[in-house]
Parts: sequence; C-alpha cells; structure tokens
Amino acid sequence: MDFLTIIDILGTISFAISGVLTAMNKRMDVFGILIIAAVTSVGGGTLRDVLIGKTPVTWMLNMTFIYVILGATIAAIVFRPQLKYVRKSLFLFDTIGIGLYTTAGVQIGLAADLHPIICILLGTMSACFGGVLRDILCNEIPVIFRKEIYATACILGGVVYLILYRFDVDTSLTTIIAGSVVITVRLLAVHFKLSLPSVYRDAAMPE
Amino acid sequence: MDFLTIIDILGTISFAISGVLTAMNKRMDVFGILIIAAVTSVGGGTLRDVLIGKTPVTWMLNMTFIYVILGATIAAIVFRPQLKYVRKSLFLFDTIGIGLYTTAGVQIGLAADLHPIICILLGTMSACFGGVLRDILCNEIPVIFRKEIYATACILGGVVYLILYRFDVDTSLTTIIAGSVVITVRLLAVHFKLSLPSVYRDAAMPE
Amino acid sequence: MDFLTIIDILGTISFAISGVLTAMNKRMDVFGILIIAAVTSVGGGTLRDVLIGKTPVTWMLNMTFIYVILGATIAAIVFRPQLKYVRKSLFLFDTIGIGLYTTAGVQIGLAADLHPIICILLGTMSACFGGVLRDILCNEIPVIFRKEIYATACILGGVVYLILYRFDVDTSLTTIIAGSVVITVRLLAVHFKLSLPSVYRDAAMPE
Repeated sequence: MDFLTIIDILGTISFAISGVLTAMNKRMDVFGILIIAAVTSVGGGTLRDVLIGKTPVTWMLNMTFIYVILGATIAAIVFRPQLKYVRKSLFLFDTIGIGLYTTAGVQIGLAADLHPIICILLGTMSACFGGVLRDILCNEIPVIFRKEIYATACILGGVVYLILYRFDVDTSLTTIIAGSVVITVRLLAVHFKLSLPSVYRDAAMPE
Repeated sequence: MDFLTIIDILGTISFAISGVLTAMNKRMDVFGILIIAAVTSVGGGTLRDVLIGKTPVTWMLNMTFIYVILGATIAAIVFRPQLKYVRKSLFLFDTIGIGLYTTAGVQIGLAADLHPIICILLGTMSACFGGVLRDILCNEIPVIFRKEIYATACILGGVVYLILYRFDVDTSLTTIIAGSVVITVRLLAVHFKLSLPSVYRDAAMPE
Repeated sequence: MDFLTIIDILGTISFAISGVLTAMNKRMDVFGILIIAAVTSVGGGTLRDVLIGKTPVTWMLNMTFIYVILGATIAAIVFRPQLKYVRKSLFLFDTIGIGLYTTAGVQIGLAADLHPIICILLGTMSACFGGVLRDILCNEIPVIFRKEIYATACILGGVVYLILYRFDVDTSLTTIIAGSVVITVRLLAVHFKLSLPSVYRDAAMPE
C-alpha cells in the first residue's frame, strides 16, 4: 500500500465521518447515516464518472471504498462522544482528501482528452460534490455555496496542476505540488477566516 | 403477459400512486404530480442504469412504463377520495414492487459482472431510490433515512438471492424466494412496528 | 455565427441570469451563484445526455457554454441593480431559450432512434430540468411543479415537431415552427395567467 493510497483512505474516512455527523444531526436512523456517509465519500467521484461516461463508476469496481466507508461509519457511531477530541485530525484528513480528490479529477479529465478548464472543473467537482449531495439529502442549502473557500482552493490547485503539466513536470511531483496548494489555501483560509463575498439581491426576478 | 410482468406493472402502479399522494400533499399542479409519480416509479432503476452505464436507460426503451404511469396517475387523481379504501392493496403492491425491483437490480448487477456486495447495493438502490428522489423533489428529508426498515428488507433479500445464486439454484426460483424474503421482512417489520435505531449526535462537527 | 447559435447563446444567458437571481436571493457567495447559474443553464441538457448515454456530456466538449455562463454571471452580479430594466428582455430570452432547448432535445432523441413520446419527454427535460435543479440546490420545491405552464408549452412544441417530422418537413423549418409553438404558448399563458390545476389531497397515504 503506497503513500497515495493511504492518503486516499484517510480522505475517504474523513468524508464519511463528516457525513455521519451531518446525518446524526438530522436524527436519521442507522441506514440513513450509512447512506449519507457513502454519498459524501463517493458522490463527487460518481458525478465525475457519470458525466464523462466512465461506467460502471469507480466505487463499483473496488471494494476498498465500501469497506472503508462501512468501517468509518460504524466507528463514528460507536465513538461519537469521542469525536470531538479528534476534530483537528478530521479537519486535516478532510483537507488532504479534497487535495487528493482534486488532483485525481484533473488527471482523469486529461486522460479523457478534455479541455484544461473542464479538467479543473472535474477536479473541483470530484472534491466538492459529495458534500453538496450530503447537504441536499439532508434538506439543507449546500454549505459550500454560502460561506466556504473550499472550491476556490480546489480551482487554484487545478490551475497549478495544469501549469506543471504543460511544463512536462513528472506526474507524481505535479500531484504532490498541486495537492499541497489545495491544502495550503484551505488551511490559510480557515485560519484567517477568509471567505468569498456574498451578493444580496436587489434586482427584479424574471418570471 | 407472464406472472412477473403483471407483478412488475402492479409495482409500478403502486409506486406511481405513492408519488401522486406525496405530490398532492404538496399542492403541486397536474404536471408536477405526473413527474413525481414517474420519478418515484422509475427513479431507482434509472440511477442503477446510469451508474453501470446501461444507456439509454430502461424506461426509454419500453413504452409500457410510460403508459402505466400515465394511467395510474390519472386514475389516482380522479379517484383520490376512494384511495383510502384500497390502502391495504396499495401497500401490498408497493411491497411486492420493492421485492421485484430488488431482485431485478441484483440480476442486472450479476450480468454486469460486478462484486456480489455491489449487486446487493444495486438491487437496494433500484427498489429504494425512487422514493428518495420523490422526497428530495418534494423538499423533504427522504423518509427512508429516518424510520423505515424498507432498505433492510431489500438488503436481506439481496443476500438470499446471492446465496441461492452461488448454489446454482434456478433463476426463477431464486427470484421468487429472494423476492418473498423482501416482502416478508417488510410486512413483519410494519406489523411489529420494527425500525432501525436512530443515533443522536453528541459530537463536535469538523469544519 | 448563424441565427440559431445566437439564439442559443441568448437562451444560455437568460437561464444563467435566472440562476444568478435565485442564488442571490438565497444569500449565496460568488462561487455558489456561479454554480447555480451554470446548473440552471446546462442542467437540462446534461440530464438528457446522461440518460441516453451521450458522454462526455455536451457542455464538456465546447467551451462556449463555460465562457457565456461566466460572462453572464459576472455581468449579472455587477449590474444587478439595473437588471429590473431588462426584465422583459430576459423573460423573452428565457422563453426563446426553452423553445430552442426543446427542439434540440427532440432532435437528439430522434437521432438516438427513440420512441416519439420519449423524444418529446427528452425535449421537455432539456428545457425544464435546469430550473428544477436550480430550485433543488436552493432548497425549494421546483416552481415548475406548482404553477407553471412551462412544461406544457414544451410538450405541445414537441408534438408539433414530431408531426412535421413525420410529414418530412425540412429540419430547419420544423425547428422554427415547433420552437415558435413553445414560445407562443408560454407567452399566451403568462399573458392570460393560465396555469394547470392543482389537486389537493384528500386520500389516505399508504405506508
């Protein structure tokens, strides 16, 4: 098991746990919690695969995801009173996860021969859409649309990936640098409480 | 028209009517009611087809679904005051429907050469996701995530299907036995008011 | 750039602006607004493509959509106090947009050799589903399910398209006539405040 696989599993775990917490908050039953955990973890990659026609989608071809999500969900339910003590680690795993998911998405887009900007969008979608689906299923406006710098970090990382790719930098190195950009931007944004401006509406709605 | 086709049509009818009732409850117009009925009926199979790449999706290749849904919706709107008298029959059709949808989903997964556990998930998804989509479109947290034993019945039926499949039992017999397991578990669960435990959250949410 | 392309771009612009307005209303940040604009514009065509297996989906193959949506969103945010002065133009673009999206959807269905009724559904879906997705992401019951004649106009236009197609009328002429039917029905419906009846529920819900 190499370094990237370990990071991938840590990312999946932290995504699953964020799903468990949201679902418990909504007083779902054990089945609902499991589904929300799974959707948060694999939702982004699934949308990416469906849109580019890479089917059966990735999580169906590899049981690792299923086992990791199942294990993380059970552990999060059992040890839920203790979760607050690992809050910082979870945040870090989550951030590393989006870094990795972003670069994986960009890579898959390039392999499918899509336009560089589309590849950045695919990467961002892979990293962010799981959380969007989680919020829709929990009947909330997705948090990412309101006050997160999440997606901006992914887009910047995607841009860096493509620049390095153009200069023929080695793929592993590109992945590590672009992933680090995502992680750094997100950590800085949370630390300095940066967020995108929201725009209040003062115009007429067309009917 | 064979026995399974008749059951399939009865299942589609009862799924459509459950959609009509939810949509009427939300004061939708006739078009909205029809869409919710259709989504409840074919939503689960559509997700299954899209995820494994079986396109165009099944309901596009066979007009039966369209006609049955249209007929069931019109009938349910016209005879809505009488629906309460057939409540038990509707519940039975619905339960038979999920039994059948589950086994059909497992079968399609096996034909696509997917891992047995993925096949069970595909079967469960086929049976349950129509109702999830119905609830999302009606702006509700899906009922199945909160207090249903619905999915558990599907999973148990899927497991039985795969065990019989491993022992090379005849496909029709396998379908009937596995479908009956789904139906029996659901009827027992409703009769004895069984449901999965929900877990209240008492942990910190990572940000 | 021919006439239809110009109309297509105008339609995309007005769909994007309707997304911007809804998202601003929900106090989303700039990123959320952009996503809602994009989803409103390309959501319908994306669903159509995914359901029939035309992947990668259309907007990934042509950067025009991305640029138009980005430009329209930035312009709508910057000039939001002025949007009320172009309200009527926006409504007109939007209506022309759904006319065009409907005919394009029907055409793609025919090219995929699907049943005529399925083709009408594909056209209607292409025109309407972007708005449905916009409303779901903004946590609203889709407006189209409650009080719009939107979809009815699309269905009528689709029927006209297929009749002309059966009589071997030239494709451009068919597109213009069918598109005009959609536009006329919608304009008349809004002018005379027509809408479909809603049906209140007075029946028992099956469990």
